Amino acid sequence: MNTIRTLVFDVFGTLVDWRGSIAREVRATLGVRVPDPEVFADDWRAQYQPAMEKVRSGEWPFSKLDVLHRLNLDRVLADRGLHDVPDAVRADLNLAWHRLDAWPDVTPALVRLRERFRIAPCSNGNISLMVDLARRNGFPWDAIAGAELARDYKPKAVVYLAAAAAFDCAPGETLMVAAHSSDLAAAAQAGLRTAHIARPDECGPGLGEHGPDGPVDFAARDLLHLTALLST
Amino acid sequence: MNTIRTLVFDVFGTLVDWRGSIAREVRATLGVRVPDPEVFADDWRAQYQPAMEKVRSGEWPFSKLDVLHRLNLDRVLADRGLHDVPDAVRADLNLAWHRLDAWPDVTPALVRLRERFRIAPCSNGNISLMVDLARRNGFPWDAIAGAELARDYKPKAVVYLAAAAAFDCAPGETLMVAAHSSDLAAAAQAGLRTAHIARPDECGPGLGEHGPDGPVDFAARDLLHLTALLST
Repeated sequence: MNTIRTLVFDVFGTLVDWRGSIAREVRATLGVRVPDPEVFADDWRAQYQPAMEKVRSGEWPFSKLDVLHRLNLDRVLADRGLHDVPDAVRADLNLAWHRLDAWPDVTPALVRLRERFRIAPCSNGNISLMVDLARRNGFPWDAIAGAELARDYKPKAVVYLAAAAAFDCAPGETLMVAAHSSDLAAAAQAGLRTAHIARPDECGPGLGEHGPDGPVDFAARDLLHLTALLST
Repeated sequence: MNTIRTLVFDVFGTLVDWRGSIAREVRATLGVRVPDPEVFADDWRAQYQPAMEKVRSGEWPFSKLDVLHRLNLDRVLADRGLHDVPDAVRADLNLAWHRLDAWPDVTPALVRLRERFRIAPCSNGNISLMVDLARRNGFPWDAIAGAELARDYKPKAVVYLAAAAAFDCAPGETLMVAAHSSDLAAAAQAGLRTAHIARPDECGPGLGEHGPDGPVDFAARDLLHLTALLST
């Protein structure tokens, strides 16, 4: 416990409600042409891992998540026959990922955690996306770590290790915080300590992780609960 | 003017008084063994460019500035015959660069500039060093750009270009702010816009740049003056 000096955070799902926020943006932008904006959000998100796998495998050079999100958006629109959505509308809708809203516990918890730890996102989102989410939601980051710093995507070890190294921390001095057990398993494999945050409704009502499905150092109901766990 | 979206800043000399702060730390740590702490600071700083040149030239792999500072410190101590300074004292003194004090205009100006622009350091200092300076002085950075993000050292173009790219900005939408004309010339060569800040006493009384020695987009007396120039 005493050796943890830096906290790094997954963002999509762990800190922000991507599904509700994307659905809101899709509804505002495409209106009745998309009668099921939550499903549209799910479809868009479903392209996320396959696109990153192109980079992780070396088939594609490193590309910012904004670039991958745009390719994925074009595919989802094509699958629905929405071929005539103008480029400017697509470009703006793609930035919906920069306008996600935080779960209500997150910002007050980060403000408190920052008093005792150095804090940074360790997300697959690019730096500008993280900056826009921070400004929108008041996240008081010390720095932006993650995929763009490491030039590769989680769950590859280099992303976790680059985040720890940026803060001059050994992996074991760094706590990875996420709502996804697979993310935490990869972080643990890289030597980091781990904290699971329950987000039981991340992917729709009841469709999120209620708890970790493997060993973690901390398991919390939300980020304020983690703050309490780290204070004891 | 209207196209500038992001401001990136040199730090050593431009935002913080490295010479006065390092002299203070040397005095506190080594006492009467160093009767001339300002000269010691100058000697340490004099090793800065040659060490980075090893990285820029490809002779050394990228190494954080903390690592280079330590090699340089050991050399300065050896040159003065101070061979018996313990390793722990050297390690702590090396972190003096994490404890530099800002010039008094800087923090209030950054707070105001952040209302209109995204802001980041574009320094040769490593991320943890920038984080510690930000916490010490209240710099409200959006992200930490600079050498560690680019994995090379200024004045190489990649460092300026990586900072602009991190914010999804074209070079011409990015304003480099520095007290050193050579830094600004390199930034301009990379396509960035430039603002010079006068720091006439950076390297001792009267030993700093009173103004730019080449063309710049803005020339300011201090950072609050730049804030005013960017408001017109």
